[in-house]
Amino acid sequence: MNSTILLNNRPEGRPQESDFKFVESEKPSAKDGEILLETKYVSVDPYLRGRMRDQKSYIEPFELNEPITSHIIAEVIETKNDNFKEGDLVTGMLAWKKYQTTSGEQLNKIDTDLAPATAYLGILGMTGLTAYFGLTKIGEPKDGETLVVSGAAGAVGTVVGQIGKIKGCKVIGTAGTDDKVELLKDKFGYDEAINYKTTDNMKEAIASAAPNGVDVYFDNVGGDITDAVLANIARNARVINCGAISVYNDTETPTGPRVEPILIKNSVSMQGFTIGNYQSQFKEGMQQLGKWLKEDKLTYSETIVEGFDNIPQAFIDLFDGKNQGKMIVKV
Amino acid sequence: MNSTILLNNRPEGRPQESDFKFVESEKPSAKDGEILLETKYVSVDPYLRGRMRDQKSYIEPFELNEPITSHIIAEVIETKNDNFKEGDLVTGMLAWKKYQTTSGEQLNKIDTDLAPATAYLGILGMTGLTAYFGLTKIGEPKDGETLVVSGAAGAVGTVVGQIGKIKGCKVIGTAGTDDKVELLKDKFGYDEAINYKTTDNMKEAIASAAPNGVDVYFDNVGGDITDAVLANIARNARVINCGAISVYNDTETPTGPRVEPILIKNSVSMQGFTIGNYQSQFKEGMQQLGKWLKEDKLTYSETIVEGFDNIPQAFIDLFDGKNQGKMIVKV
Repeated sequence: MNSTILLNNRPEGRPQESDFKFVESEKPSAKDGEILLETKYVSVDPYLRGRMRDQKSYIEPFELNEPITSHIIAEVIETKNDNFKEGDLVTGMLAWKKYQTTSGEQLNKIDTDLAPATAYLGILGMTGLTAYFGLTKIGEPKDGETLVVSGAAGAVGTVVGQIGKIKGCKVIGTAGTDDKVELLKDKFGYDEAINYKTTDNMKEAIASAAPNGVDVYFDNVGGDITDAVLANIARNARVINCGAISVYNDTETPTGPRVEPILIKNSVSMQGFTIGNYQSQFKEGMQQLGKWLKEDKLTYSETIVEGFDNIPQAFIDLFDGKNQGKMIVKV
Repeated sequence: MNSTILLNNRPEGRPQESDFKFVESEKPSAKDGEILLETKYVSVDPYLRGRMRDQKSYIEPFELNEPITSHIIAEVIETKNDNFKEGDLVTGMLAWKKYQTTSGEQLNKIDTDLAPATAYLGILGMTGLTAYFGLTKIGEPKDGETLVVSGAAGAVGTVVGQIGKIKGCKVIGTAGTDDKVELLKDKFGYDEAINYKTTDNMKEAIASAAPNGVDVYFDNVGGDITDAVLANIARNARVINCGAISVYNDTETPTGPRVEPILIKNSVSMQGFTIGNYQSQFKEGMQQLGKWLKEDKLTYSETIVEGFDNIPQAFIDLFDGKNQGKMIVKV
C-alpha cells in the first residue's frame, strides 16, 4: 500500500497534527519514461510553514488536500526511463508519499561514496547552500569581524558558524538549550554561545560577547533576539535575513521596534533572500562545501526521526527547537 | 554685535523655541591665517534633530550650550589668509552665528556664475548628493521599474524623483498637502503623487499607483507610510533608508510591523546610509548633478525664510512639512 500526507488545514498559529491528513492508496507503478521511487529520507524545514499559508503573493503556497512537498532522498525501485537504473539514489523536491512515480527531470543522482545520503539533504543540500550563499555573498565577512548567528544550532546555523570561522571571524551563536550551547562551542567552533531562554537581558549579553559591535548578523529567527542584536550593530554592518522562525506561527502581523532609525544611524543593510536566488551558482557552492567537508573544515549534525507517520510531528517539533542540526525523517 | 544660537535643551519630542538660546557678543575679527565670515544663508535639515540627542553612539551629538552647526553659505568680509579674498562666497559646516572666524580649511568656494548661491546648499550640496548617491548607488533603478519616494516634496525627494525619471522609472511620490501633490506632478515630473494626510488607506493607494509592485523605495519619512509601501514591495526590491522624519521626535522607541518576513519573502534589501559614506565620490556626484542642471533635466525649489532670529522656527517647521523643497534661512 501507498501512503500520502496532504495539507488538511492551513495552520492557525502553531501547526498541529490535525493540519495534516494521511491517505492510503494502491502502490503505483512506472509508466513508459517514468521511474518508481521509494522514499528513504524526508527533509522537514521551517520554510515549509510559509508555504502552508494562503498568500497569493507567496511563491507557490501548498494547495489544500494536496500532498506536501519537500526535499527527499528516494531510491529508484522500478525504471522505464533509460536515465535511471534500479537502486539509484536521487534527490529533489518530491511529495510526502511512500511511493511515487516521476519522469525524473528535476532529480539529481547522489553519490554516497562522497558523503552519506543524508548529507545531500543538509550540508551538501539546501541548508548548506543557504548558509554558504547567505554568509559569503550577502554577509561578506572579513577577517577579524564579529559574526552573530541566531538559531545557531539549527541546520543552517551550524554551517554558518563554521564558514564564519574559516573566514576569520569571531563567531557568536544563540540557541535555546544549554546542550546546544555546549555543542556550538565544542563541536562547531563557536567562540561564544548564549542560551536565550535562560538569559534575562539579551541586549547586554550580546554587548558583552561583541564589545566592538556586530559586523555581520545571520538571522534565522527574527523577533526579540534580532532586536537585541540590532541594538549592538556596528557601523556598515550587514544583516542576512534568512529566516524568522520566531514569528512564522504568529496569527497577527508581528510588531517590534522600527529598524529604519538603526539602519540609517549605522549605515546598516538588511537583505532578505531565499536560496533560489542563487540557483545558477549551486554548483560552485556544492564544490566549495564538498571541498571543506573533505578537508575536515566542516562538520555537521542531524536529528533523525524514524517512520513515515512521524513526518508531521517532526515538522511541528522544529518550532520547539527539538532538532539539533538538520531534522530528517528516515522512512 | 554678533549673535549665536546655542542648544539650550535636548528636545523632548517635537523641538521648541525654548530648546535654543540666543547669545550676543562682540563681533570678532580675523587673526593671522584666519578669515572673518558673515553668514548669508543657513541650511536647516531634519538630520540635525538626531544630533540634538544625547546618544553616545551617534556621530557627533551637539553639546549643550554650544552653537548648533549646519551647512552655511557665508561671505569673506575680512581676510588674513592668502587663500581667500574679501567678497569670496564659501560653503561648509559652520556655526549658527552672524559672524565667525575660521582658518577656512574645511570650506569650499562657490561659483555663482554656474548656479545661484543657495543651490550649493541644495541640489549641488548635501541634499542633491544624498539623492544622487542614495538612488543611483543603492537603489540602482532600471528602465521601466517603479520608484516610490516618501517625503517627495522635500529637498531630497524632489531631486530623487527627477533622477528616477532620467533613469526611466515610473515615479510615485507621497506628500502632505494637495499643493505639494500638484507641484510634484507639474514641476518635478512625478507620474503620480499621493496626499497621505487625506488618503484613508495608503496601502491601497500605493497598490493602485504601483500595480506591479514597488521596485525601488527611497524613504525619507519611515513609519506608517513605509509600512504601506513595504506591503506593496516587489521581488528583489531595494529600499534606501535615507531618513525617518516621522519618528525623529518620538520619545519612546517607535514600533511597527516587523520587516524580516517581508524582506525574506520577497528577497528585498534595506540599506541605511548617510552621505558621508560617499565622501570620496562627491566630485563625481556634483559634476553629474551640475551637468543635468545645465541640460535643464533637473529643477529645484526652495523655501526661503528671512532673518537670523527665525532659524530655530524654520528648523521646527520642517517637522510640520511647512517647507517645499530645500528649507533655507536668509540672514
